[in-house]
Amino acid sequence: MRTDLFASRHIGIREDDLQHMLKTIDVDNLEQLIHETIPSEIRLQRPLQLPNPMSEHEFLAHIQELSEKNKVFKTYIGLGYNECITPSVIKRNILENPGWYTAYTPYQAEIAQGRLEALLNFQTVVSDLTGMELANASLLDESTAAAEAMTMLYDVRSREQKKNEVLKFFVSEEVLPQTISLLRTRSTPLGIELIIGNHEEFTFDNDFYGALLQYPGKHGQIHDYEAFVTKAKANDIKVAVAADILSLVLLKAPGEFGVDVVVGTTQRFGIPLGYGGPHAAFFATREAYKRSIPGRIIGVTKDTDGNHALRMALQTREQHIKRDKATSNICTAQVLLAVMAGMYAVYHGPKGLKFIAEQVHSKTKSLSQKLGKSGFQQLNSSFFDTILVDVGDVEKLKSIAEQKGINFNYIDTGLVSISINEATTNQDIDSILSCFNELEKESNNQSSGSDSTEEVIPNSVQRNTPFLQNEVFNSHHSETELMRYIKKLERKDLALNHSMISLGSCTMKLNAASEMLPLSWAQWGSIHPFVPIDQAEGYQIVLEELAKNLSEITGFAGTSLQPNSGAQGEYAGLMTIRAYHESRNEGHRDICIIPASAHGTNPASAVMAGMKVVVTKTDERGNIDVADLEEKVIAHSQNLAALMVTYPSTHGVFESSIKKITNMIHDHGGQVYMDGANMNAQVGLTNPATIGADVCHLNLHKTFAIPHGGGGPGVGPICVAPQLVPFLPGNPIIKTGGEQAISAISAAPWGSSLACLISYGYIKMLGEEGLRHSTEIAILNANYIKHRLNGKYEVLYTGEQGRAAHEMILDCRPFKQNGIEVTDIAKRLMDYGFHAPTVSFPVAGTVMIEPTESENLAELDRFCDAMISIRHEIDAATAEDPNNVLKNSPHTLAMATSDEWNFPYSRQKALFPLPYVSENKFWPSVRRVDDAYGDRNLICTCAPIEAYAEVE
Amino acid sequence: MRTDLFASRHIGIREDDLQHMLKTIDVDNLEQLIHETIPSEIRLQRPLQLPNPMSEHEFLAHIQELSEKNKVFKTYIGLGYNECITPSVIKRNILENPGWYTAYTPYQAEIAQGRLEALLNFQTVVSDLTGMELANASLLDESTAAAEAMTMLYDVRSREQKKNEVLKFFVSEEVLPQTISLLRTRSTPLGIELIIGNHEEFTFDNDFYGALLQYPGKHGQIHDYEAFVTKAKANDIKVAVAADILSLVLLKAPGEFGVDVVVGTTQRFGIPLGYGGPHAAFFATREAYKRSIPGRIIGVTKDTDGNHALRMALQTREQHIKRDKATSNICTAQVLLAVMAGMYAVYHGPKGLKFIAEQVHSKTKSLSQKLGKSGFQQLNSSFFDTILVDVGDVEKLKSIAEQKGINFNYIDTGLVSISINEATTNQDIDSILSCFNELEKESNNQSSGSDSTEEVIPNSVQRNTPFLQNEVFNSHHSETELMRYIKKLERKDLALNHSMISLGSCTMKLNAASEMLPLSWAQWGSIHPFVPIDQAEGYQIVLEELAKNLSEITGFAGTSLQPNSGAQGEYAGLMTIRAYHESRNEGHRDICIIPASAHGTNPASAVMAGMKVVVTKTDERGNIDVADLEEKVIAHSQNLAALMVTYPSTHGVFESSIKKITNMIHDHGGQVYMDGANMNAQVGLTNPATIGADVCHLNLHKTFAIPHGGGGPGVGPICVAPQLVPFLPGNPIIKTGGEQAISAISAAPWGSSLACLISYGYIKMLGEEGLRHSTEIAILNANYIKHRLNGKYEVLYTGEQGRAAHEMILDCRPFKQNGIEVTDIAKRLMDYGFHAPTVSFPVAGTVMIEPTESENLAELDRFCDAMISIRHEIDAATAEDPNNVLKNSPHTLAMATSDEWNFPYSRQKALFPLPYVSENKFWPSVRRVDDAYGDRNLICTCAPIEAYAEVE
Repeated sequence: MRTDLFASRHIGIREDDLQHMLKTIDVDNLEQLIHETIPSEIRLQRPLQLPNPMSEHEFLAHIQELSEKNKVFKTYIGLGYNECITPSVIKRNILENPGWYTAYTPYQAEIAQGRLEALLNFQTVVSDLTGMELANASLLDESTAAAEAMTMLYDVRSREQKKNEVLKFFVSEEVLPQTISLLRTRSTPLGIELIIGNHEEFTFDNDFYGALLQYPGKHGQIHDYEAFVTKAKANDIKVAVAADILSLVLLKAPGEFGVDVVVGTTQRFGIPLGYGGPHAAFFATREAYKRSIPGRIIGVTKDTDGNHALRMALQTREQHIKRDKATSNICTAQVLLAVMAGMYAVYHGPKGLKFIAEQVHSKTKSLSQKLGKSGFQQLNSSFFDTILVDVGDVEKLKSIAEQKGINFNYIDTGLVSISINEATTNQDIDSILSCFNELEKESNNQSSGSDSTEEVIPNSVQRNTPFLQNEVFNSHHSETELMRYIKKLERKDLALNHSMISLGSCTMKLNAASEMLPLSWAQWGSIHPFVPIDQAEGYQIVLEELAKNLSEITGFAGTSLQPNSGAQGEYAGLMTIRAYHESRNEGHRDICIIPASAHGTNPASAVMAGMKVVVTKTDERGNIDVADLEEKVIAHSQNLAALMVTYPSTHGVFESSIKKITNMIHDHGGQVYMDGANMNAQVGLTNPATIGADVCHLNLHKTFAIPHGGGGPGVGPICVAPQLVPFLPGNPIIKTGGEQAISAISAAPWGSSLACLISYGYIKMLGEEGLRHSTEIAILNANYIKHRLNGKYEVLYTGEQGRAAHEMILDCRPFKQNGIEVTDIAKRLMDYGFHAPTVSFPVAGTVMIEPTESENLAELDRFCDAMISIRHEIDAATAEDPNNVLKNSPHTLAMATSDEWNFPYSRQKALFPLPYVSENKFWPSVRRVDDAYGDRNLICTCAPIEAYAEVE
Repeated sequence: MRTDLFASRHIGIREDDLQHMLKTIDVDNLEQLIHETIPSEIRLQRPLQLPNPMSEHEFLAHIQELSEKNKVFKTYIGLGYNECITPSVIKRNILENPGWYTAYTPYQAEIAQGRLEALLNFQTVVSDLTGMELANASLLDESTAAAEAMTMLYDVRSREQKKNEVLKFFVSEEVLPQTISLLRTRSTPLGIELIIGNHEEFTFDNDFYGALLQYPGKHGQIHDYEAFVTKAKANDIKVAVAADILSLVLLKAPGEFGVDVVVGTTQRFGIPLGYGGPHAAFFATREAYKRSIPGRIIGVTKDTDGNHALRMALQTREQHIKRDKATSNICTAQVLLAVMAGMYAVYHGPKGLKFIAEQVHSKTKSLSQKLGKSGFQQLNSSFFDTILVDVGDVEKLKSIAEQKGINFNYIDTGLVSISINEATTNQDIDSILSCFNELEKESNNQSSGSDSTEEVIPNSVQRNTPFLQNEVFNSHHSETELMRYIKKLERKDLALNHSMISLGSCTMKLNAASEMLPLSWAQWGSIHPFVPIDQAEGYQIVLEELAKNLSEITGFAGTSLQPNSGAQGEYAGLMTIRAYHESRNEGHRDICIIPASAHGTNPASAVMAGMKVVVTKTDERGNIDVADLEEKVIAHSQNLAALMVTYPSTHGVFESSIKKITNMIHDHGGQVYMDGANMNAQVGLTNPATIGADVCHLNLHKTFAIPHGGGGPGVGPICVAPQLVPFLPGNPIIKTGGEQAISAISAAPWGSSLACLISYGYIKMLGEEGLRHSTEIAILNANYIKHRLNGKYEVLYTGEQGRAAHEMILDCRPFKQNGIEVTDIAKRLMDYGFHAPTVSFPVAGTVMIEPTESENLAELDRFCDAMISIRHEIDAATAEDPNNVLKNSPHTLAMATSDEWNFPYSRQKALFPLPYVSENKFWPSVRRVDDAYGDRNLICTCAPIEAYAEVE
């Protein structure tokens, strides 16, 4: 065994198993399987051009060497990103713990109560600090969240406003530049007109449906927005505020002065800067808007036995239900980061947060005073952590500061802003001062600064309401106690470190430790996204090389790493298509054809990009109905903007007509967008360029080994053909993107740079052969399961030669005659120690199984044994008597150990249906959750204990 | 709340709880409690002189800065230490996982089956590779293990040899220098005469009882020892071999040529060099010596239900039973490292290990050939990974190599040896060659090297037996699979991340993440212990400062960090006393007085140090019987060497007569050795110097936050008064220790340097105030428990004012009238989610509870609630009917979920006796283990499945 080859560790199947598996599925070798699976006309003609694979040991040395090329300065740039301190107990027990980072999105609530509780904590933190009734958990970044506020407020504008086509949205010039850029991107396709200006000069006319303010302002000034909000409300203008989460500890909560939405980032609650992300943004609003709030909400409900339980609430809001009626395409959240930020608040508690905020504030005040005494004018009359200083010669200051390893925010007009943070020490303040003292002062040394006793947060904007009064925020302040709390939650959740999570279309593969280790290193974690580019040389090498590799893998000419999720990638891709058509004076092209089986984000993204969705049918084999498509293409030929297609299809099939389809689109002036959700079936064997696509997004958290983090972060770069390269998205602060770059898609220039290290490592360590072999084995594993389940479950769709791609759909509808729904199978799998596959997507009443290449034969067999055993249970069930092992599943520890056992089957049968289960039993912590009850009685914060009692 | 103070995180008690607790125990303030607990005459007169505490954030920056002062060279020094690759999956899931590193020694086998299985794997690896029947798990380092071999073979020498006082032990000059140094230390006090020489010239005369060989030799030569062993056996000379574990993959197992003992280190099985340790050494021998083998052995047995179970076997061998009859004082093992090394073998399997060994060997061969071609003479005719090269100008080569960041082993005689390792790449081989090519060659360029086809491992010493055939070594080769296997084992073990482990005398406090994080960094992990000292500047600063701080804390003049465990510290301390007496021509002083209540290591260490143990009584209050002591002191006045005393006593009391006692010893020419096991009750309040001791050891893994690692590593530095400083132990390779240093106590100059980072961080982050406050709270917590259990359990011993120190002994003997033994309480605590306190030490039939300062009030209360609830259960039990909840405990998941429940109490009562239990239930994975069965049927390796079946 070549123990130095990462491929042999990443891939679960051993050489010895291969023959057995090939024989089972009746092929002579892997090549034959691939030949029978992927149409030969789209097979790659040459191997991917990638460097030779590094061993894990080599990669770790390499990535450490690169890390040393990043310069870790003391950075006071602010602008929505601040250095902070990740408590080591959180770093070790969450960020470095596969029990947390390898979990999936908590759709199966019964085996996800741990992170659901952690996310409820997060929502409570946001609700309390913003003073709003309802918060989600979570959004991608502050700027995206602000854009979601703009569109949600648009969605909920009054009937009259809708009638009068009120389309204007006011944006304060105090809003962060990256947010304004993103609002531009998002408003244009929807026809919303952005008006940017001084909020004090705003005339509240009734062309406006909403407004966005920044609190404190981008350069630190705290404005009292109460009068603005009052006037706005009087004029039926809804107001959103982008707020700094730490400042809210000391400042009056925006909810108290009547705003409708508060957004922001929780990055400074313990999340590394990571050159831009990933971080968790928040979105808080009134309960009145609960049906419109974007993103995931965790809500309290009860389980079958009436016990307290959590789950994702109000799912009917989301794009996978609303499709082209959705106002947001948000899907992935930033769960891992939200969990960490929530734990930061749990660890510090209200008193600890207050200590931190006061420390930051008092150091800022002290700096302001000292600068004043040194003769510098500080311009913010009221501030929390950021001061604005008139320096005259900005360039000179910059040169002095950089020599001392310090970054300020240099503003063209002779001003600098300085944002103080949790990690700033008194010595750091002295170092800052020393930079200024080296400047030749224009004024004399007499103080012009504020007096030391002066209060720079006026009473009118001071917080005087309590927050985080719940027990959870007042109990876990010692490290031992927090470590145990984290562990207690972790134990409730099934993650990849327990068993296979065979989620069709989600590709839950190994997230290798060697890929994850560098994320803990300060040289990667402590880089602000807006530092001068020469301070981020290590990152630039990684990001450039990763982009190049992804272009090679997709066969395309250019890549943007900016999109923070798959859905954002879809949107970004469609926006480049839009820009492309406009550049050719074909801006009228606005028809986007989407197959009926597409993921709900596709139509939602198309609508956001200003396109009209035309749905094309799929035939009975699950393929695009080419005749129907042709009809629609011809009908919309003049206005055809794009086709969105998933390949292999969401039905798990390599459609052989794909080239015909893409040619047809091109012939009618359209561009082809390929959804990369199923890219794990392509890498090294075929690629989007070869099938005729023009742009695709990749889910780095599916195909390229970024862990799902319990429901995020995702990273969704887009790769594009040459004609689209000029339009790749830019950033208003740091140059990136194409020559005619569209405005920002995400707040940070390269999106979630820190997470990109994982995919970089994945590609570097696998190399061409490893990547290709991973794809082959992913396809083999799927076909192996398909054969083992043959005769027990019907596989709905296969390729022309009867092969599945890397996943397959099992039809569970026939079991209705026994009274068994697909959900029963999903829940019963928990009793067998497995997370359910994807349920009812893309076909209701089915499960979609994707084992990935990382699973080994023994685990595949255990899973198949479980599915077969369940099939026997189904056969024994009857529609008449629902008191069976499936309907009652999952069986919890409380049931299992109860003195009473009133079921018509034994405990053994319920709990340990196969021998392997008893070796390593996993316990669902609640019985089936009651979604309807929770949605009717929406509670999205940690309520006091008494409130829970009512649930019973 | 000062969130930046580490003390507030390390200490569990909140300001708000303090008043409640003080009131409970009826004192006004902490000072009063301390005043009532510690005799005022021994209170410190001034605060400890320590730098101000760093915040965690500051410490992490500081320790990173120091790490950069270490120079990570490519090091080919060998000599028992080799760079290797820690598989990232093992690093992340074991080394970085509190679930593994915060566990205690597996005395409570029912909640320790995970690490017991991992240790059984380790033993199997050692048995298979050495070809021996029995292996332990594990010893401190190779040199210690060799010394243990020397003494064990001495112990088992024939009756005739005993009669004839055969005392000579032959040591090959091929043995590692640090081992020879340690053998000198250990042989002298026992009267064993070491004869060091060439094994080929050895005359097998009958003055010798044993011999030690090195395989391969220290500079790499492989000797065929078969003839030697045959002759030795014929002369009744037993043979031990120190072997390189990786070489054994390719070399004939020593067991095959008939040796009696094989020792070595498993460091190169994935354990970082860490500037000397910690690493796990092994000791393998014949089953015939099973009663004499030192250290812990894991053995297979069955539980109450006859199921397969593991536990520590043959405990009667150990020092805590045999006391002064013991031949070894070994107590702590290197569990965490043994677990990792075992997992390394699990991950690679036999094929993977073979690949690694062959790679290492073939690179070595290739280097040898290339050097030959370059005109250098390579002197080893047969080698595995180390070659010996004649270079002439060693100094010049050294200067060239160091410029290239390379270390060789420079030998005085114009020779260098070069040891190739797993991490050596082909480029590294080229770099090595380039050093030599820069040397002016004395000979011409004609090849004098071995021919490329020549076999350098002769047939006679080649391995041709299989190894690691068990399933566990042939199943977990993908990362996903190994991650799950590790997780599966972890879930069986209760560690500090679940609940309090209140082990009296073991001080299971928080092992803070900030203290642990640096252990993952290459700049600390990759330093060979024998590099030139200027390459380890970061380490030198840490070690020097730590030694200085420990001297300050103990009030002493000097510290040696060399001892790798508490027992080794005891031995080291007594050896300095011995050297001191000898230096004053009082070498005849050999009486060591030890109280009856002392830990078993005390008398065992004294005997090893060549002393005669005189036991002094304790009075009914648990204190040393001063009158009895005085009598013995006077009786032995002329020969009095030392008193060993634990303070506060093992009974958990600050004896007020301590100064009288220490004065008495000094008056009679003796020295006072203080066992530092209970140092957690002293730090900052009193110290060993103040009580009149001359030397103490500290258990850094108790008092100074090094995690127990599931049973090791330990670190046991000694601190000494001025008169003992000159004798602090040295090292034959790197200068350390006093001016008249005794020879080595451990193989590495500074022992387990890597683990010292933890204690360094602990002291740096707490500072004087934090350390002192920790002690105060440790005492408070103990007294709080004492008060809460008042009336339920009798506390056996208290101080004069009725206070416990930091721990207390509860008398469980009265419960015998209800048929309840102390073990029943220990096992029943598992059902309540707690690990038992210390059982039957120092008084049989008692438990000793030490909560430490890290526990919070809620956890203390849960524990007290459990103990009180158990007391009620005891009251309800009767001697007549043992079918009760205590006798049947612990209750396993299998029992809990069985369809049958035939106990006279409910499942709820058995499993969830208090409400908190059901929130976070921990399951013992087996019922009570059968020690006697396992000892009668000793199995200490992973047997094939069939063998287990027989157990039933």
